[in-house]
Amino acid sequence: MNLGRVAQILGITESRLQGLQETIIRESAWPEPRLLRFEKEASGIEAGTVVFENGEIVFGYPKIRRPLMLAAAIKRHFSGPIAVEEKMNGHNVRVLSVNSEVVALTRGGFVCPYSTEVARRLVPEELFMRHPELVLCGEMVGPENPYVAKDIYPTDSIDFYLFDVAEKNCRGTFGVHRTHDLAEKFGLKATAFLGEFHRDVAFEKIKQIVIRLGRQGREGVVLKDPDNLVSPLKYTSSATNCSDLAVAFGYYNDYALDFFVSRAVREGFQSVEWAESEEERRKRAQQIGESILMPLVETIKRKQAGESIVQRVRIRVKSLQTARDFEYHLRRSGIRALFDPPMPDDDSYLIGITKLVMSTNDKTQALLDGEMW
Amino acid sequence: MNLGRVAQILGITESRLQGLQETIIRESAWPEPRLLRFEKEASGIEAGTVVFENGEIVFGYPKIRRPLMLAAAIKRHFSGPIAVEEKMNGHNVRVLSVNSEVVALTRGGFVCPYSTEVARRLVPEELFMRHPELVLCGEMVGPENPYVAKDIYPTDSIDFYLFDVAEKNCRGTFGVHRTHDLAEKFGLKATAFLGEFHRDVAFEKIKQIVIRLGRQGREGVVLKDPDNLVSPLKYTSSATNCSDLAVAFGYYNDYALDFFVSRAVREGFQSVEWAESEEERRKRAQQIGESILMPLVETIKRKQAGESIVQRVRIRVKSLQTARDFEYHLRRSGIRALFDPPMPDDDSYLIGITKLVMSTNDKTQALLDGEMW
Repeated sequence: MNLGRVAQILGITESRLQGLQETIIRESAWPEPRLLRFEKEASGIEAGTVVFENGEIVFGYPKIRRPLMLAAAIKRHFSGPIAVEEKMNGHNVRVLSVNSEVVALTRGGFVCPYSTEVARRLVPEELFMRHPELVLCGEMVGPENPYVAKDIYPTDSIDFYLFDVAEKNCRGTFGVHRTHDLAEKFGLKATAFLGEFHRDVAFEKIKQIVIRLGRQGREGVVLKDPDNLVSPLKYTSSATNCSDLAVAFGYYNDYALDFFVSRAVREGFQSVEWAESEEERRKRAQQIGESILMPLVETIKRKQAGESIVQRVRIRVKSLQTARDFEYHLRRSGIRALFDPPMPDDDSYLIGITKLVMSTNDKTQALLDGEMW
Repeated sequence: MNLGRVAQILGITESRLQGLQETIIRESAWPEPRLLRFEKEASGIEAGTVVFENGEIVFGYPKIRRPLMLAAAIKRHFSGPIAVEEKMNGHNVRVLSVNSEVVALTRGGFVCPYSTEVARRLVPEELFMRHPELVLCGEMVGPENPYVAKDIYPTDSIDFYLFDVAEKNCRGTFGVHRTHDLAEKFGLKATAFLGEFHRDVAFEKIKQIVIRLGRQGREGVVLKDPDNLVSPLKYTSSATNCSDLAVAFGYYNDYALDFFVSRAVREGFQSVEWAESEEERRKRAQQIGESILMPLVETIKRKQAGESIVQRVRIRVKSLQTARDFEYHLRRSGIRALFDPPMPDDDSYLIGITKLVMSTNDKTQALLDGEMW
């Protein structure tokens, strides 16, 4: 690896790069190809940025920021029309070809064996043959997504939706139009384009879209500048805020504390911005309250009945080696999981996975035994 | 101060005491008398333990632990009957006489000028003349409590309720019976004694008491071993859990994140332990949801209307010097507050106080302006 050239592309000095290697850059030797990952943001380089052994660099996908008052944020942030796309609820990957092999990188910059197998199945080979420099930024969604399993999308398994495109060794992305053009050209699915609106009417339009998506249990929207001049923003439906609360309270001791509060605060701002009636507000309160109480009760009762507090997910793999690799990948990501024996199903294997939620499991047992909080 | 003797009473070596003086012991020179405070627990010495300049020591009041499953905790913790007292919602003080002057110590071990004035008015001089060694552990409650203002107690101002008694230079406390005897003897109010129950029926009795207290908006109970052989436990009503949530979400950016989650989790366990019906559970969920959403909406709307997010409280003082001292005391405790001009009222002064809630105030303004979360 030519460190001087890598530093130049990253936009830092070679000595700074060497300094970072001792602190925030981590090596990952498995699975192939070997790479260096930026574990945190540093010197303006996004977390999740990856430097492969061959010297190729893939920048981390920038974090999309979230306003709580949408109308004010639109005015403040955008100067022209606003393109609206669906924000999908799954996990974010960057798919690319290194040394002629397709790999899928997680946000943190690991190669995920399962996402890689899925990407190899869904992304036509021709794309990287013709454009080896491209980085496909997309969301993996569906019921066979072991990170975030959702039944709301038109797939029984796991699917890949493109939402942006970048180039190796380059910061920045292609933006809305070039992304959808590329998807169409190569028959890839892309996150739904829900319209482009003039700044003055955008708030009301987006509100209606978010309400509609919420009714379908879908997550929300990403707002983009069609000319890609300012960074995108995200905004979510009440259904998603409440469903986040429900998941988090079901595993109340395993989630970061700010996860709970931020979801509730989003609901407060949405209720004010939408100028809800007393009755609408009471209904929203009921939904928030039930999203908190019912999963807690469910978890406590399950433990009371002698069950373990676990999360059941499933994957579908073509190759059993992928499952073995994915098991190791989860372990190194700090997730404790038990894999069922594989069940042959058509041309693939279905594998149930039990994700252990140790902290909530043990805490609930202790509290049931009369221990103190 | 005879360090050797102090160390001996604290139950540590003199060199350990000297070591702690450089780390967790802080000096407080104001108001008189000068003292050393244990800012944190160390070597088994409770946080809030105070060593006065004359060498007298007042141990910190031990933290009372909280079960979430009451029946199991009763079985586990107590071996005989259980005395039940009301847990009052105010601030905890230790009142004692040093060099023939009555002072009130906060939990952290500061002399609070306002609590001290109140204690001097309410505790008969005779008590400390006859028992100069006593430390009265009690709760200051009422609408003129500037820390926790509550209208639910039978006072228009601020009152002192004894809940335990200790002795200077001694660990441990006197427990239920001697506390109520002392209160009766000297005409002090004491926290309500709600009964003594056999271990086998205690859970059902206490549940009924907590439900009744909750209906009155009162906080909950403290469960004590009548013979003071094991430490007390506390348990709170749903009304208090929800009212805590309401206050915290009204000032959502100024509260510690675990405050929010712990209140919600208490509700989950109470709902399970009380084996609620679907309808009761939905009602509880509604109350939780409204305790979260309505105060958030209120805070956002107030800010939207151009108001500052502040907390209004009031104190009543006999001496204007007490008010000036209390202003300084709040400042050193990290609370930013503006005092109104004093209003003469009977033989005292009523003073409105505006407590600034800077973080929520500024965050709400920024979010209303369209900034990102």
